[in-house]
Amino acid sequence: MIPTITAFEDSPDRGRGLARDLRVRWALGEVGQPYNVRLLSFKAMKEPAHLALQPFGQIPTYEEGDLALFESGSIVFHLAQSRAGLLPDEPNARARAITWMFAALSTVEPPLVERSMALIFERDKPWYEQRQPMLEDRARKTLGALSNRLGDAEWIDGAFSAGDLMLIGVLFRSKPTGILDEYPNIAAYVARGEVRPAFQRAFADQLAVFTSKHPAG
Amino acid sequence: MIPTITAFEDSPDRGRGLARDLRVRWALGEVGQPYNVRLLSFKAMKEPAHLALQPFGQIPTYEEGDLALFESGSIVFHLAQSRAGLLPDEPNARARAITWMFAALSTVEPPLVERSMALIFERDKPWYEQRQPMLEDRARKTLGALSNRLGDAEWIDGAFSAGDLMLIGVLFRSKPTGILDEYPNIAAYVARGEVRPAFQRAFADQLAVFTSKHPAG
Repeated sequence: MIPTITAFEDSPDRGRGLARDLRVRWALGEVGQPYNVRLLSFKAMKEPAHLALQPFGQIPTYEEGDLALFESGSIVFHLAQSRAGLLPDEPNARARAITWMFAALSTVEPPLVERSMALIFERDKPWYEQRQPMLEDRARKTLGALSNRLGDAEWIDGAFSAGDLMLIGVLFRSKPTGILDEYPNIAAYVARGEVRPAFQRAFADQLAVFTSKHPAG
Repeated sequence: MIPTITAFEDSPDRGRGLARDLRVRWALGEVGQPYNVRLLSFKAMKEPAHLALQPFGQIPTYEEGDLALFESGSIVFHLAQSRAGLLPDEPNARARAITWMFAALSTVEPPLVERSMALIFERDKPWYEQRQPMLEDRARKTLGALSNRLGDAEWIDGAFSAGDLMLIGVLFRSKPTGILDEYPNIAAYVARGEVRPAFQRAFADQLAVFTSKHPAG
């Protein structure tokens, strides 16, 4: 049974790794699970057939036989707990790796997304100059705390896990803005994630969706 | 082994259920697990002893023997998978309940928190009047989608689960702002959560921390 995920037919970032199917593709690669991709237009994402799978009209989703899931965190967790390679067996280490999955999504991602969204969508607003320092400060507090915890470690808590995958997946989206370079150990941590073969394949496959639809020249 | 959680010594909301230990107390009650509480001042939350437990200097945390966790999502998940009562046994239903935990924290909570934070902290800013409609719109899009999915169901997907607990825990924090009343099925869903004995006990215990420190009269 080959699972099917959904992804953007025409990604707003031109396939540069910002869409959340990257994390799911990466996890599928880490556990060695082949998969199919169903591409969706923005219009199709808001239609009843997709809303039945994803009530908020977003991507990615995951279908495997009669199981249908959404939320990148939930899909990565499902892959991690049903296949080997993304969660330690020892119960306490496993619970801590899951903690980092939640920390990535609940604590690290919101201030980074809020900052990035304002950089993109509020740059021309009269309040941008006054308001942005508050968002920069919130993002830096979170990254500073993460940097302190990470220290010189290779991964966030022992061996590479789904916790690292979600953290790096979240951090990677802020890389184009330059903020990660202020935390050399975080930048190096993300770079260690990026050179993993499963990340490289996931990134290349996501980019290929865009380039095959928009061939150069 | 009685686990210990951390909570605010002096809660900014005066113990009215907005602090995230409410979800953890509620889950502990649902699974019938007694617990101890260690109260922390804002100063203590930023000191090395607590940062070793919670790298972002927040509450709640969870300690049980040599296991130490943070993130309300992770703690609720740990309780749900190690005790009976919060996750269905059937694997697909279990994966869907976990999906709703992630949806509550990654999709529903961020726009509600962003809106509430602006209501509290940016009300006196020159941009408030112009910017707030955008935040209201984002929050309503999310609540509208959730309302459509919930329909007339008692709980979000079959029997009450950790998915409902996290959703209601998240939604409850926006109740004082009145926005839930625009979605009668969501307001009724939250009310069904609130009358559960474990919620009532969690709420009373959280409130008691404040009232015992600040006796009336």
